[in-house]
Amino acid sequence: MASMFGDAVRVSIFGQSHSPAIGCSIDGLPAGIPIDFERLRAFLARRAPGRGDTATSRRETDEVEFIAGITEGHTNGAPIAAIVRNRDTRSSDYDELRHVPRPGHADWTASIKYGEYRDAAGGGHFSGRLTAPLCIAGGIALQVLESRGIRIAAHIAQLGHQPLTDEPLNPMELDEEQLEAITSNPLPCIDASVAQRMRQTILEAKSDLDSVGAVIECAAYDVPAGFGDPMFDGMENRIARIAFGIPGVKGVEFGEGFGAALMRGSTHNDPFCMRDGQPQMASNHAGGILGGVTCGTPLIWRMAVKPTPSIGTPQHSVDLDARRDAELTVHGRHDPCIAPRAVPVAEAACACAILDAMASSPGSIRLEDPHLNEL
Amino acid sequence: MASMFGDAVRVSIFGQSHSPAIGCSIDGLPAGIPIDFERLRAFLARRAPGRGDTATSRRETDEVEFIAGITEGHTNGAPIAAIVRNRDTRSSDYDELRHVPRPGHADWTASIKYGEYRDAAGGGHFSGRLTAPLCIAGGIALQVLESRGIRIAAHIAQLGHQPLTDEPLNPMELDEEQLEAITSNPLPCIDASVAQRMRQTILEAKSDLDSVGAVIECAAYDVPAGFGDPMFDGMENRIARIAFGIPGVKGVEFGEGFGAALMRGSTHNDPFCMRDGQPQMASNHAGGILGGVTCGTPLIWRMAVKPTPSIGTPQHSVDLDARRDAELTVHGRHDPCIAPRAVPVAEAACACAILDAMASSPGSIRLEDPHLNEL
Amino acid sequence: MASMFGDAVRVSIFGQSHSPAIGCSIDGLPAGIPIDFERLRAFLARRAPGRGDTATSRRETDEVEFIAGITEGHTNGAPIAAIVRNRDTRSSDYDELRHVPRPGHADWTASIKYGEYRDAAGGGHFSGRLTAPLCIAGGIALQVLESRGIRIAAHIAQLGHQPLTDEPLNPMELDEEQLEAITSNPLPCIDASVAQRMRQTILEAKSDLDSVGAVIECAAYDVPAGFGDPMFDGMENRIARIAFGIPGVKGVEFGEGFGAALMRGSTHNDPFCMRDGQPQMASNHAGGILGGVTCGTPLIWRMAVKPTPSIGTPQHSVDLDARRDAELTVHGRHDPCIAPRAVPVAEAACACAILDAMASSPGSIRLEDPHLNEL
Amino acid sequence: MASMFGDAVRVSIFGQSHSPAIGCSIDGLPAGIPIDFERLRAFLARRAPGRGDTATSRRETDEVEFIAGITEGHTNGAPIAAIVRNRDTRSSDYDELRHVPRPGHADWTASIKYGEYRDAAGGGHFSGRLTAPLCIAGGIALQVLESRGIRIAAHIAQLGHQPLTDEPLNPMELDEEQLEAITSNPLPCIDASVAQRMRQTILEAKSDLDSVGAVIECAAYDVPAGFGDPMFDGMENRIARIAFGIPGVKGVEFGEGFGAALMRGSTHNDPFCMRDGQPQMASNHAGGILGGVTCGTPLIWRMAVKPTPSIGTPQHSVDLDARRDAELTVHGRHDPCIAPRAVPVAEAACACAILDAMASSPGSIRLEDPHLNEL
Repeated sequence: MASMFGDAVRVSIFGQSHSPAIGCSIDGLPAGIPIDFERLRAFLARRAPGRGDTATSRRETDEVEFIAGITEGHTNGAPIAAIVRNRDTRSSDYDELRHVPRPGHADWTASIKYGEYRDAAGGGHFSGRLTAPLCIAGGIALQVLESRGIRIAAHIAQLGHQPLTDEPLNPMELDEEQLEAITSNPLPCIDASVAQRMRQTILEAKSDLDSVGAVIECAAYDVPAGFGDPMFDGMENRIARIAFGIPGVKGVEFGEGFGAALMRGSTHNDPFCMRDGQPQMASNHAGGILGGVTCGTPLIWRMAVKPTPSIGTPQHSVDLDARRDAELTVHGRHDPCIAPRAVPVAEAACACAILDAMASSPGSIRLEDPHLNEL
Repeated sequence: MASMFGDAVRVSIFGQSHSPAIGCSIDGLPAGIPIDFERLRAFLARRAPGRGDTATSRRETDEVEFIAGITEGHTNGAPIAAIVRNRDTRSSDYDELRHVPRPGHADWTASIKYGEYRDAAGGGHFSGRLTAPLCIAGGIALQVLESRGIRIAAHIAQLGHQPLTDEPLNPMELDEEQLEAITSNPLPCIDASVAQRMRQTILEAKSDLDSVGAVIECAAYDVPAGFGDPMFDGMENRIARIAFGIPGVKGVEFGEGFGAALMRGSTHNDPFCMRDGQPQMASNHAGGILGGVTCGTPLIWRMAVKPTPSIGTPQHSVDLDARRDAELTVHGRHDPCIAPRAVPVAEAACACAILDAMASSPGSIRLEDPHLNEL
Repeated sequence: MASMFGDAVRVSIFGQSHSPAIGCSIDGLPAGIPIDFERLRAFLARRAPGRGDTATSRRETDEVEFIAGITEGHTNGAPIAAIVRNRDTRSSDYDELRHVPRPGHADWTASIKYGEYRDAAGGGHFSGRLTAPLCIAGGIALQVLESRGIRIAAHIAQLGHQPLTDEPLNPMELDEEQLEAITSNPLPCIDASVAQRMRQTILEAKSDLDSVGAVIECAAYDVPAGFGDPMFDGMENRIARIAFGIPGVKGVEFGEGFGAALMRGSTHNDPFCMRDGQPQMASNHAGGILGGVTCGTPLIWRMAVKPTPSIGTPQHSVDLDARRDAELTVHGRHDPCIAPRAVPVAEAACACAILDAMASSPGSIRLEDPHLNEL
Repeated sequence: MASMFGDAVRVSIFGQSHSPAIGCSIDGLPAGIPIDFERLRAFLARRAPGRGDTATSRRETDEVEFIAGITEGHTNGAPIAAIVRNRDTRSSDYDELRHVPRPGHADWTASIKYGEYRDAAGGGHFSGRLTAPLCIAGGIALQVLESRGIRIAAHIAQLGHQPLTDEPLNPMELDEEQLEAITSNPLPCIDASVAQRMRQTILEAKSDLDSVGAVIECAAYDVPAGFGDPMFDGMENRIARIAFGIPGVKGVEFGEGFGAALMRGSTHNDPFCMRDGQPQMASNHAGGILGGVTCGTPLIWRMAVKPTPSIGTPQHSVDLDARRDAELTVHGRHDPCIAPRAVPVAEAACACAILDAMASSPGSIRLEDPHLNEL
């Protein structure tokens, strides 16, 4: 069940980097939800490659074809299915890789797990290209959540080995200026000058035939308290399960995260207070989650993205057929840093997790389909 | 489905801090696996409270009664079920908490999600006490894995706000001396002097009526390559899903984790080399996982544990009934740092995730039934 | 995952016929549902053995201990867990059966699947005794459904090899007289004289050291239209999945069932008509389900129960140890017909399936927990 | 999760009768399984419409495009995804049906459950057309099972309201002559004269603008003992869950099925005997399953298929918009009996259930990955 997630809204992802198509099915959305395809396209464009000098020059048009589940621009209650044709693939780039695994990639583990019939081209099913169908599901989830007042935003919080750090997302309430900055800057950052220096760092890595890692921060605003379940289906578990499905993610943290280990309880605990006659939390070290359940403050989380393993520098590897050491130079076209393109993917992951928690969270025996009452 | 995890070996956990009993069922283990109950008891004792001055003085004998699934000391193929009676509970300690939520605890979110009939005593189903049944499942999983040569160890890697840092677990191979040190030191650390200073830090926090956070590092040695699945059922996803089910965990990372964001690809990538005629990885920045699949190097991961929210210092809260601000002093008996007791819980979580991946991974190494071949 | 069912309300069953206890956990019920324990006890008593001359003389007191999930007589949102101690077990009755499988029982398949460590006593986990925890879950489900106006009833529709046939349950609306008759007759039948003759047939089989089969019919009244999902999660699929989990069930049918194969479409189709300004179905050959989804008419289904395989007559078997033919006489104490005790089990299965469909059916992104709105 | 099934080999089905395409994904097959696409096409052709006078004249070419999961004619370990374009659709045939539900169809329940945005054309996601992707998954499963010696066959066991009954499938061992007869006769029957009379019955119903029901019998030969799990994941539960997902199926039974209710235990029990030094069952009333687990005899089951609800005769219905009674004549092109086309669908359902049980059963025979042993 590797490529499925979700309890009540279940997403199934399929495809390989160089298969005829990639796609997803989404089972469990109620009928009657309008989908704004123009906005979905714009969201997918943020992930797509081939935009500017910090990204790979591959062109993936990512034209989404919905083959099921949509009637007159609305969900119709049947599973949604969407596919994206793979077009600009150069499988010959990958011939050598069938027997010489690229360090840092899944070539090696794929050869162990799947043997000679694995699809080695472009990383096969392990490819970052599979984040496109995740963004289709996530883009739809974002629209459903927005219709209920939930807004999700992400940015590059940190980048490079001499770390450049962006201003943090407001942990207490949505700041429209921050969100505008993120979309208007050349890289998705709040601070324009940081964005500029990050861009410079990526270009330096590129010119060194190397790559850099980053941390993406993501926030969900106006999430009602009460989403998520205790123990293994908490909001942290749900988001982490999807986020670690994004290639290159090696760490996920919530609120203060690993920083919480450096604090005392008297500092880390978020006190409660009455405000406008309502009980509220006065700070948000918890990142909006207590006991796995959303507590009303913004949901804040971060994911660490390792430096792109595809680098132009020669690397030590082995020839699995000849069973001897080998030197490998990865050609092809690759991002020197996947962070800019990973930002919408983090938003998509966050939206899918919240939507599923919202739809599956017990807390009611539910019969609230308006159509039931109309008849 | 909050309190279940696993695909092929499915664990279901039940109980509240002050309910008559807590327990678990484990469905999917083949018949004929011997269980060493003495070792299981010893493993559970490492998690149990009431041992020494750094932990809570509550006594929980944690006597496990197996009520199903065991015949003559072996699994019999039916679901295993085990319960632990709750004995040393003082519910009166929690009377005030029904309407004054403790900062940093799930009292607030439980009141929102479950309303007046929630079990507030001792944190209810959100209590750290529920890690006892997780350790029953994990203790059994550890024994199954050990019978196949897989060894799991954890220690306190970092503790306190002026961080004390233990020596890391050997990332390339099991080091018996490290494991012995961890079990012989007063706190589960590799470096005896660090253990001593960590103990001091905890006692200081205790005397300040405060608490401290920590990072637990866990390693699994001799895990065969090929466990785990791509995308959402990778080893990272599986471990993270369980680990975030441990109360207080706010971050999970693998290999270099968040440190990977500070590296360049040329440094982070683990080169391959031939050794003794076999292809191997020359380093282990990946933490034993590439593309979600184990790659043959030790599996290394860390989890950040927030400072215990129960502190003796007065805190700001609200009275949910009177709807006004309130000051709260948590009495009861609590750990000033849960890290020492969280170490075996990390091992249990790791073992459960690996066992399930081993059993459910299509085409992978499996728990073979010898009886099928006999007939 | 053999012993779990449900998507949104997930039941996990554990125990063997002669293990220390049997029980279940139920995850996913919202908090605040009142449980009437007296009614639950009365419901379980209908399944319990030792009542009258048509049933086994084994006494199972079936005292249910709730060990988690209940606070002050209400669900508290945490998983419910309940156990029943096994007391009146005579394992020595089963010594021979370890190596001589009883025809018609799972002894043979258990020996193949689980080998020497299987629990052979009393059928182990395959025992009909495991319907007790199913009835605990079902008894709770029945109460939840009744609070929403849904009533479930079952009776013995047919019994014996010269079939005795009871009056069918009213397929169009609940008939209180029928329900009273079922509970007041010596066997759960609508027609008192049929009940009497069925009792006679069972006693004849008993005196012949033989057993008889039966068909149980079950109806759910006032189920709202719209429950269940297309394809593999329709109401038929959900009920059948649970019903085939009841030992001895070999067939499940809905509405006209196998009789539909004998009809023409013009007769089988249920026409629609307007009644009191509402569209309705004028007949109910469909058994209340169209396309897997409830359509507003009563949900009607039947299950075929094979004759109890435990009979006092000598039977041909084999000695698995000596590997030679053997003659077996089943001693122990057994029901000559399980139908009377299977009637409440059918109701329990039906209730669990409907409750889960109600709670998991997409058709709304739901936030209807009253507690969310109160705060 | 309506349109997914399977634990270890998980199939997800999508599409509507008139959506751009229908299809499926199949997650969990190991890499390296060869697929014979020519045989798969031949299998799908048996289900496709437009063949002869007993079926609908709709032409669905059912050209399958595999868009993922296949490399050089073998599974590559990634999820398989396949789509079939919908071409010969005449949505205008269904305009009236948007507000006048067809008796016996899911139009009514779809209108309740999904409201105005449901896809009413051709039954939408409830259409029998969705059995095409089920047959893609089943056709692949059949090939995997055949490579392990398991053979599956089905035929029309009974048809019409004056029932015509075919010779039963051999319950003790595969009979090649029976299988050849099934494929060579004009309808899939063992007895040629029965096939001829069934054909006549269908044509009579067609000329009466009516339809007839049928019973399909399916057998799986040489299934090893030990597949399937106790309680809710037995072979009966697994097959029933898929079979009730086939539109029009109203009953499922195993072995003697409902006939078992008419037997005494002394007759129904299958005695064991030694044959060629091996313990075996001397008869097969159980239909190859005891306690949910395969017992070594052929697996035998039947499903009741209701008469096609689409008939040319005028029927009573209601106009949901005008809220008044209405008369409806279904035009379009429909099968007067779906049994001939349902035969391969039963085989597909059976194959999917057995393959999943084989792959997911703990401790059972599994799809071994040869590559793990090579390294």
